This record gives sequence, C-alpha cells and structure tokens, in this order.
Amino acid sequence: MLGSTHGTLTTHSRPARVLACGEQPPHTVHGISEPHPGDGGQGARAVDRDVSGRPLQAPVPDLERFFRPESVAVIGASDSEGRPNTGITRQLIAWAERVGARLHPVNPGRAEVFGRPCHATVADLPETVDLAVLLVGDPLPVIEQLGEAKVKFAVAFASGFAETGERGAAAQARLAEVVERSGLRLLGPNTNLNAFERFREDLDGPAIALITQSGHQGRPVFSLQELGIRLSHWAPTGNEADLETADFLSYFATRPEVGAIAAYVEGLKDGRSFLLAADRAARNKVPVVAVKVGRTETGARMALSHTGKLTGADGVVDAAMRQFGVIRVDGLDELQDTAALLARARKPTAEGVAVYSISGGTGAHFSDLATAAGLRLPTLGDAKQAELHQWIPDYLSVANPVDNGGHPVGDWRGRKIIDALLADPSVGVLICPITGPFPPMSDKLAQDLVDAAEQTDKLVCVVWGSPVGTEDAYRGTLLGSSRVATFRTFANCITAVRAYLDHHRFVAGYRSPFDDAPRTASPSARKARALMRPGQPLSEHAAKQLLRAYGIRVPREQLVTSAAAAVRAASLVGYPVVMKASGPQLAHKTELGLVKVQLTSASQVRDAYRELTDIARYEDVPLDGVLVCQMIERGVEMVVGITHDSLFGPTVTVGLGGVLVDVLQDVAVGIPPFGEDRARAMLAELRGRALLDGVRGAPPADVDALVEVVLRVQRMALELDGELAELDINPLVVLPRGEGAVALDALAICP
Amino acid sequence: MLGSTHGTLTTHSRPARVLACGEQPPHTVHGISEPHPGDGGQGARAVDRDVSGRPLQAPVPDLERFFRPESVAVIGASDSEGRPNTGITRQLIAWAERVGARLHPVNPGRAEVFGRPCHATVADLPETVDLAVLLVGDPLPVIEQLGEAKVKFAVAFASGFAETGERGAAAQARLAEVVERSGLRLLGPNTNLNAFERFREDLDGPAIALITQSGHQGRPVFSLQELGIRLSHWAPTGNEADLETADFLSYFATRPEVGAIAAYVEGLKDGRSFLLAADRAARNKVPVVAVKVGRTETGARMALSHTGKLTGADGVVDAAMRQFGVIRVDGLDELQDTAALLARARKPTAEGVAVYSISGGTGAHFSDLATAAGLRLPTLGDAKQAELHQWIPDYLSVANPVDNGGHPVGDWRGRKIIDALLADPSVGVLICPITGPFPPMSDKLAQDLVDAAEQTDKLVCVVWGSPVGTEDAYRGTLLGSSRVATFRTFANCITAVRAYLDHHRFVAGYRSPFDDAPRTASPSARKARALMRPGQPLSEHAAKQLLRAYGIRVPREQLVTSAAAAVRAASLVGYPVVMKASGPQLAHKTELGLVKVQLTSASQVRDAYRELTDIARYEDVPLDGVLVCQMIERGVEMVVGITHDSLFGPTVTVGLGGVLVDVLQDVAVGIPPFGEDRARAMLAELRGRALLDGVRGAPPADVDALVEVVLRVQRMALELDGELAELDINPLVVLPRGEGAVALDALAICP
Repeated sequence: MLGSTHGTLTTHSRPARVLACGEQPPHTVHGISEPHPGDGGQGARAVDRDVSGRPLQAPVPDLERFFRPESVAVIGASDSEGRPNTGITRQLIAWAERVGARLHPVNPGRAEVFGRPCHATVADLPETVDLAVLLVGDPLPVIEQLGEAKVKFAVAFASGFAETGERGAAAQARLAEVVERSGLRLLGPNTNLNAFERFREDLDGPAIALITQSGHQGRPVFSLQELGIRLSHWAPTGNEADLETADFLSYFATRPEVGAIAAYVEGLKDGRSFLLAADRAARNKVPVVAVKVGRTETGARMALSHTGKLTGADGVVDAAMRQFGVIRVDGLDELQDTAALLARARKPTAEGVAVYSISGGTGAHFSDLATAAGLRLPTLGDAKQAELHQWIPDYLSVANPVDNGGHPVGDWRGRKIIDALLADPSVGVLICPITGPFPPMSDKLAQDLVDAAEQTDKLVCVVWGSPVGTEDAYRGTLLGSSRVATFRTFANCITAVRAYLDHHRFVAGYRSPFDDAPRTASPSARKARALMRPGQPLSEHAAKQLLRAYGIRVPREQLVTSAAAAVRAASLVGYPVVMKASGPQLAHKTELGLVKVQLTSASQVRDAYRELTDIARYEDVPLDGVLVCQMIERGVEMVVGITHDSLFGPTVTVGLGGVLVDVLQDVAVGIPPFGEDRARAMLAELRGRALLDGVRGAPPADVDALVEVVLRVQRMALELDGELAELDINPLVVLPRGEGAVALDALAICP
Repeated sequence: MLGSTHGTLTTHSRPARVLACGEQPPHTVHGISEPHPGDGGQGARAVDRDVSGRPLQAPVPDLERFFRPESVAVIGASDSEGRPNTGITRQLIAWAERVGARLHPVNPGRAEVFGRPCHATVADLPETVDLAVLLVGDPLPVIEQLGEAKVKFAVAFASGFAETGERGAAAQARLAEVVERSGLRLLGPNTNLNAFERFREDLDGPAIALITQSGHQGRPVFSLQELGIRLSHWAPTGNEADLETADFLSYFATRPEVGAIAAYVEGLKDGRSFLLAADRAARNKVPVVAVKVGRTETGARMALSHTGKLTGADGVVDAAMRQFGVIRVDGLDELQDTAALLARARKPTAEGVAVYSISGGTGAHFSDLATAAGLRLPTLGDAKQAELHQWIPDYLSVANPVDNGGHPVGDWRGRKIIDALLADPSVGVLICPITGPFPPMSDKLAQDLVDAAEQTDKLVCVVWGSPVGTEDAYRGTLLGSSRVATFRTFANCITAVRAYLDHHRFVAGYRSPFDDAPRTASPSARKARALMRPGQPLSEHAAKQLLRAYGIRVPREQLVTSAAAAVRAASLVGYPVVMKASGPQLAHKTELGLVKVQLTSASQVRDAYRELTDIARYEDVPLDGVLVCQMIERGVEMVVGITHDSLFGPTVTVGLGGVLVDVLQDVAVGIPPFGEDRARAMLAELRGRALLDGVRGAPPADVDALVEVVLRVQRMALELDGELAELDINPLVVLPRGEGAVALDALAICP
C-alpha cells in the first residue's frame, strides 16, 4: 500500500506486530534527543532549560550521512519479479549508483540480489553502513541489530503504527523506545523513498529544502524542478517515531545551499522542539513556508488517521508560527510559489512595489488586490513620472501603477521604461502582470523583463495569467530565467511578495526569546505557591493575591464577613464601592446577582451585604465572605489569561473584553518564551485593537501597562507550570495612558 | 494606443473634439433607455416605477444584430500600409467573411479599400446596415449621420473621453446626448474589437458569455476556449456612454446558449439598471460571476483613470451583488474557473461533497480547506463504507474523505470505487484532488473519472495540482472531457464548487423584490413630511416621531421645559426614567454629559433637569427642552439606518451597536427594494450575529421585530427619498423574543 506517499513504491503493509511490553527505557540522552520537557527539576541537565524545565537549546542533528550516505544496506532486498520490494530495490540501486554510495542487499533467503552479494543479516555486512533502508513489515526486531552494527540512520516504510489507532500508537511507542536505546536515528515508520529521488543537478542558486508528512503532498513542490527551481532535499517524515519535522528544519536551516524551507505539516511531535527549530531558522535568516493542516475538526481528524498526528489547537499553532516568522499558507500552490520566491530573491532594497502593465484595467485590478493585501505602492515622484512620459503617452497614468497603453513595449521604449522603474529608490519590487499572450507585445515584454532582471538586485515578478500556459514567452523566456519570479495568478504573486517583504522585515528585527527566557524562579513564585490549593479553584480574593504576588495591580479591597465590617471596609477603600460574594466556586457571579456596583453610602453597603449573603444562601453557594472593592469606572476592558496547550504547554492569551471575546473570540496567543516585541505584536493582531487607541473621544489606553501585565502573566505561566492549570483575568481594566491597568476580577484553577 | 484593450489593434488616439454645447435633449424614451430614475413623479411613465420613481422593469435590448449583423459599415476603413486602421479593416473583413456579413468600407478619401467599393459617407451606403464600426478620432459628428441612415448599432474605439478627466467626461456626456437623439445604440467609446474575435465553433454545450471593461482583463476567460470551454459572446463595454454592462447582462441572461455570464467590472453606470439586469439573470437562473475592482482607494482611483468609472462604495456594491446572487470573486483565475463550472455543471442532486484521493494527506488537506470554506462533507453510511472496503484496505478511512491508499486505482477496483461514491444519495459532488502525476496511477484515475462522469448527472471535479501542467492525463484526458470540471488549485476548486451550490440554492428560493416593491406612498409619508425641516437635522424628539409615523416603537417619553413638568412627566412615563437634553444639533449627547440614566425619584429628576440645562447653557447648546423617557434596560443594542449611495440611492444598514459598529464596522447593507428574506440574510451576515441568539445566558432577541423595523425603515427610505438624507437609529434595543424592539435614540437629517 502507499501509506502517506504517492509517486514512489513502498512496501506492502501490515500492522506492526504487537510485542510484549519491554522494560521502560532509561531517560538517557543520545544524539540530540532530550529528557521530556515536562520533567523539569529532576535529573542531570544536558542543556540549558527555562524555569518550566523546557530546553532553551537544541543541537542540530548531523544528517549529512542520511542524505548523502557512503554506504547503504537494504534490509529485505529482492529481485523476484512481482514483489513490491523488487521495484524499491531497483530504485535504490539506481539511486546509489547516481550518488556514489555502496549498496548492500540484506535478505536471509537470497545469496545475491540483482547480481550483488546478498547478506543474511546486518551483522554479516562487510562494513559499517551509514544508512539502512528497512523493507520489512515489522522494523522493530531489526532496529537492535542495526544498533549493534553501529548503523547511523534507518528508514522504515512499514505502516500500521500510530495512524491506525491506539494499538498502532502503542507499537510505535515501543519502536521509539528501541530506537532510542539503539543509538541510531530513524526516519518513519509509514514513510517512503522521497529522500532518495532524482534531484536535478543542473540548476544553480539557492535551493528549496522540502519536508513533508505525506509524499503525495510534496510532489508539486518537487515538480518545481521541471520549471527550473532547484530542490536540494526532501524529508518525508511519516509518523516521526524518532526524527521529526523540527530536526529537518534545524538541519536545513544550517545548510548553505538552502534558500528556503517548504513544509507540509499535519501535526507536530513536540511544541518546544518545533519552536527551537523555527528559532534557529529565524536566527539564520532562512525563510520557512508551511502548509499546516488542522484549520477545522475534519482536517484534524483526517490528519490523525493519516500519520497518527494530533494537529494541535489551530489558533495556538498559528500563533507559534507567526511568533517565529514561519510563513503559513493554505494551498500547495501558495507553498510552491512562496517558497520559490523566498529561496531565490535577494534582500529587498526598499519595500515599495511598482506595478507595471500594458493595460490600465490590469493595473487597476492588480493594484486593488495588492493594496488590500497590505503591499505599499508608492506614488512615483514628479521627476520620475516626467521621465516615464518621455516614452508613455501623457494621458496615461504613470503614478504607480504604471500603464504604458501597450505600444511602447513593442520597441526600444519597452526596456527604457523597465530600467527607469527599477532605478527608482522607492521601488524594491517591480511586478508586471500579463493576463494574456499577444506575442508582438508580450514576447518582447517578457524578454525585456528577463534582461532587465539580470542587471538589478531588485526583485522582478511577472504574472503570466493565461490559463493555457504553454506559450513560449512563459515556458521559454520567463521560466528560463533564474532572476525573474514568475507566477500564474495575481493572488499567489501578492501572497509571495508580501511574505518576502514580511520575512526580511522579521529577520532584520529578530531577537531570539530563548536568550532572555527566565531560568530560575522569582521570589513571586514562592508567595504564589502559598496561595494555591491543588485540585481547587481559588476564590476571587485569593486569585487577586496571586496577581499581587506578581506585581499586577488589583483594586483596593477587603474580604469581610459581617455587614458592620463591610461598612468599615467601604470607608477605608473609599466610596463608591463594588461588593461581590467571594467563594472558591464562583465563576459566574454576575449572572447569579452576586455583584453590586456603584454603592455610595453606608446604608447601601449594609443592604448589599444582606442581599448578597441571602442570595448565596438561597443558591446554596458557600462563601468565604464578601469583597468590598474600590470601583474603577474608566478604561478599556481586556482579558488576559493562561491556557494549557497539549503541544506547547502554558500559553498566554490576551483579548478585548465583552462582546469581542465572547462572540468573536478575538484573542491573540503568545507561546512562552516571548519578549516585549511579541506582547506588542499580540495587541496589534486584535481586530478590536482600535479600542486601545481610543474611540468615540476616549483617551488612548495605557498600552505599556497592558504589555507589562502580559509579560508578568507569562512569567507566572512559566514559573507555576504544572501548579496553575488556568488563569483568567476578566476584566483587566486598562486606564488612560500613564495610569496603569487594574485586574478587577480573576479566576485561577490549580490542577 | 491601446486604451482598455490588449490583443487587438485599436485606433490611434486623440482626445475627442470639444464641441459647443448643443441643446438639452428631450427626455424621450428610445430603445430601452428610460427617463432618469431621479425624476419620479413627473412626466409620462413608460414603465412601472417604485414610489421613489425608480423603474421596476427594464426591457431586454435586442442585441442579436449587434453580435450577428447581416451588414456592417467600417467608417474610416483603410488599406494603406502602416496605418492602424488598415489592420483593423483587414481584421473586420476576415470576421465579416467568417460570420457571413456584408461589409462596406466608408472613407471620403478612397474609391475602394481592399478591392471593395468604398463610399464617401454613410448616406451613400447601398443598404441600411446593422452595425457601423467607427475608426475615427471623433465619433460625434458621425453619429447623427448614422441615425439618419437608420443604422442600428455603432462601436466607437476612440479614447480621450471620461477616462481622461473632466473635459473628457463632458465630451462623453455630449456624445451620449447625440446617441440618445439618434436612435441607434452605441458600444464605447474607448473600446475595441473583442466582440468580433474568432470564437471556436467546434465546442458544444452551454457557453460562457463575457462582459469586460478592459480587453486585456478579458483575455484569460477568452483563452479558456483553448482548454475546451465554449465562449459565445464577448462584450467589451469601454466607457459605456450608451450601452452598459447591465444591457449585456440582460441580453445574455435570455440567450439559450449562455450557461453563465463572466464579467470584469470597474464601475457601474447606474445602480438600478444593474439591479434589474441581475434580477433578470436570477429569475432566468443564469449564474453571473464578476470581478469588481474597488476594494481599496487605489483600485477605485485607477478604475476612474482607466474607463472613467466611479467604482461605488465597495461595501454597497458587494451587498448589491450578494442580494441578487451575483458571485463576486477577486482573481481572474477564479473568474475563469467559477464561470466555467457554473456554465457547464447540471443542477445538483444533493449538496454533499465526497472527497476521494490516493493519499490520506491530500484528503486531509483538501477536506480541511473545503470544510473551512463551508462545504459539507457528509460521513458516508456504514453500508457504503463496507462496500468501499471491498476494494480499499480496512485500515484506510473511507468515511469521507475517502483514502484509497493508491493501489486500487491501478486496476478494475478504481472505477468501482468512483461509481460507488457517485451512487451515494448524500453525494452531489465528487472531488478528486491529484497533486502530482504518477502515470501508472494518475493516468488510469483520470480516465476512470472521465468515463464515470459520462454516466452520471452528478458533478465530478478534479484538481490537477502539478505546477507543470503539460502532462497527458491533464491536457488530453481531463481537458478533453466536457463532463469533468478540472482545476489547478484546491482553492479555485473549492471556490467554484461553493459558488455552484450557492447559486442553485439561491435561484431555487429566489423571489424578485421588484414584484413586491411599493409603488405608492403610505399614509405614513404624509405624517412624516409634516415633521421635516429642509436643510436641518431633526431633534431627537422629532426624529422619534418620524419613526412612530412608520410604526416603529419608541420609549414612552415627554418633552418638557421645566423641572416641575419633568417630575409630572416622570410619573406618567413611570420610574426609573432617563432624561436627555433635546435640541436639533445634539448628535453626541452622551459625550457632553447631556444624558442622565436610572433616575428613580422626583428629587433626582428635578436635580437632573437643572444639571442638564446648566450644561447646555455652559456648552452654548440651544435646547428645545428636556426629554423624560421610559428606561429600557434589557435587550441587544443594534443600529439601523438609511444612507444615500451615489450609485444606488438610499440604502438600509443594520449592525450590532457599540464596539462592533464603532470599531469593526460590522454592518450589513440592503439595497431597496428587498424583501423579508434579504432582511433576514442581512442579520446573518453580521459577524456579531450570535448576540441576537443570546450569549452568556441572555435570552434570544426578538429577531422578527428587528426584521420588521428594517423593512419599515426601507419603506421610509423609498417614500422619503430626496427628503430624508440620512437616518440613524442608535440604539435600537431588541428585546427578548416576543417583546419587540424599541428605538432609544435617532438622528435624522433632511437635505
């Protein structure tokens, strides 16, 4: 069967044999694998860790001998006609000859395979091989032999593991244990031959390195080689029992020939290893473009049944990618076009985009879409416009977009116009959309663009919009150029150019949050722990003390247990006051009528005390007292909280309160560790962010104070990881600029 | 120069000669043109009109002899080498021979052109011609001669009109006047030869008819013929001095050979004529797919300089299209793919989509995107899954998406699986994404899909995702089929299939709002007019009386001018009360402190009266008194209003109040006339619509009452058009179901 692949033959499938459960593997560190992030605090630490126990570094695995082995063993090699392994063996022999590797067939039932001596077991091999390809239904028994034979890498094609459900997942866990003990690194199971395909050697320049969790899904990017785009590697990671997407990301991010990494991802094995790999790519300024399945439940369910992967909460994965500059796209066509552009284009000299076309309609349409997508089309200066009007009739607009009306492209003026546009310092990108071929014009235009692109460091893009796509100007001229980026649709060009400008802006300002992550607990953590009661939600009063321990401001308030004490508290707190019933199980006080606001006198306070305790008695809600709180009236209501994510651990969320969070789920997520820049970026992601700037005459809110609260909550999330399951500050009232932010209510749950 | 076109030669350009202003043309009705909608009430009415004076019907122009003329005159014909007109003349002669039309060159300087006798003027022609093609710099002087010669249609290529600015717009207005008097219908100016291109005659089945305001922008749809998609017409409307996009929409919607209309639109000449044309298409169940420029200011500005068109407020145009079922897309590639599918696919038998692939990854990815876009993938029944598992291994998921693992496509099982899926009654659409070619599988799969599609009425779609696109399975097998819809990207397939299902659902439930539009004023209008003061905003109290005249509920309230009267009013209205300063210039009362809420006693009312009048005196705001109003506490705050749009006249907006409208501009627009179905659809478009269903324990709101208010406001908009410039009910509080809706405040402005 084909498992996750297509386009290469793989072994016949059968579920992995279910073995008796072996002994628990010791948590030894071998290669790059690390103790589980959750075990913070215990054991010897091989690498630097943050206060939550998660690693702050990940060594780059050396995969050179995986991709370029000098010697290969094929376990289960065959040359009997009709057997699936025969086709694979033939393919591997051809590949080994091409790359100059020595290939050794292994099969106890044969003396030779395709004329090569065949060995009964791995132990019989004449040399220590770099790579073993396992064409066997159950790879598990072979792994230990490979370990003893000091084999560096293995690839397992067999399916029937985590993608098939619980029993398969257990079998995969056992396989992972054996691999860990063996000392080798395994690709698979449920993978294929994609890593050993025929790569074109005749293409120059920076290449795309490809990582896929499905062979069929990687095929279009691989096929880009037929359009002249260089590919250097393809890692089909399959079920990732050992080697995972993050390992290949890290490795590719250090390879000089790699210009961009393209990835098709169904799920992540471990959140932190992905973040560290993405961090490495960002530090090394290597763009990563990814399709990530899991926008919907349907996609998530299917990904699980395909490679046994949990897709993770989509909003969190999305935030993680954005935080580390990974460019997420939805379509494989966008993946191709964006990765190809990012791999090959040089650093921009300016962010301005000039749109140049032979039709005012095309210019209007393209500019409309480009501007809507956030690209900036600077209006060209008067001198530049005058220069262009030497060659373009006066009645046509050359302000940008530049409409040449058609005819000038047919003669000597065509190249002049292009050069003049490229010479403008405000222009970093020149885009020429050609919606249909008209050879007298479009052939010359394409050639002029290709020629001009050779003479400039600026980015030159062409959209060849004809649905036919067999025209010479496209196939020959445009695709023949390594300097012009050619697209088939306006949308893909715009997506790619935006990603290109975003990427270079991101890496230019990138500062790794792992360098500044807290390694030790602050004194706040000790204070906070004293307040927590495992297995219980905290009362509002206790939750606010938790916040105070981390320096987050709460209203003046007192917890009282009599009406008289309430009146005394109110005069200390200062009128008007708010009074709320306080107890550990009170998540929805307002709905129950357990909050009284705008109390302005002692008699109102006495009445309110009686009323609240009456309601609590009637509703059978145990109270630890009544809170008498300072009333805060002005300000923007926000929510800030901590949520536990199965992939990434504690995450920090921030959103605008009220209807925006209730109805529109308008929240931004930060994955620790992150710095102040990310906290500010989170606010910028909110659809309702204009509220913070002040609408309807309201003053601008104290965004600095809000950012500070987000960072303190992050610290709390890291230091109290495992002890604080959830935190919800709702509302956090952000006062006008310079006046701070106050947490009016908070809910905290201990696991 | 090329003007708006590309791919066909047009005349050399020069600005139209500015003539002395002729006499005002009488408002005679000729052909289909109508008195201006704004002149409601005066003059003889040729057609039925609504109460605002806008037409409720538009005759379909008979354009048969435009597209298929029996005789053609070419004014300015030439055969001198090197002149642009020579190329055009040659092209027209070839076209006339192809379509069997008699062609007569006209040129005072020549006795014959390309061997044909040439006439000095139109008057000298040997017959009354159907069509005159004007290859002259200034078409204006020729038009009257054409009118006298009873020519039915003319095409003017000259540019230099509205696309060049004010002077050009004036010249175009004069041209339009002369055309109106002449009795002929004109295409252009600033257009081209696209209508007379070579259409493939060998393609069968329903065709695409194309309308474009730019030749270059229509080229990709025209090129679809090279991929086997039939095209019947191309109308390049240019500046639309006379014939406009709506005329061609209407005409194409009545042609039996037209399966779908594709349009590239920069601006609309008249809102109502577009709505009537879209209504005709909806009644006739002919899908219209349109790219409309103007999402951004940049696009709008460029469209103006290209064909002299105002793009209209984008949100309003968008709403108009949605209201009449016009499918708006952003890219020319989406236009091609969606129009091609809608032209050719039969009516769906079910809305369920089955996704079938040779890779679990591809199935997961496609399903994820399809589900996110709103397509429904029904889970296949147990019996169907068991049937599929006869041919597909048990460990693969066949619930939908269906993953066959690859191998079954290579043999007899391939076709069985496809037929079994198509036989499922829950499946109306089968989509097979093939991301890359692997000939042993993909060639057979493509052929099986093509064969199966011949045997079913259900829609079969294939995505051929290889970026190369020259493979035989794609070019030969898939594109060779008129029954399989083939796409190049997941996104375009999903967009098109969604449009296909949406279109058929829309037309099945379509009821033309023009049939039920009010033709005469209600008694409310007279009452309302008595309240209005031209050139002035109404006071809150007067605006609320306006609403009451239309049966819209307002709180019990009294306007008082003394503290004592306020106390009396409060006891009549009932405590607690709200008090507000009332005056004609009070748009922002809350910000000025001119609103007092929750007043529960006579003394509070007296104090409030004093405070409000003091503030008004201090702020120098003239008051007509103080309003004492019933206080309404529960309910969802909405805004409902009337805005004047330059293209469509009065429009009705509805949105959720507060931050959603202030910060997110979350409003829906209805273009009169519309019915209750549209009013309900407007609410469904709101991002915050969940608030109406009740969130955080709130009861569901009285949506029926809200819909009724929207419809009454529409009636007001139509009846008071020209007398009421703007209306803003903010807030309209929608009470719990069964309790109605109350307008708490309103602003009304007379022009």
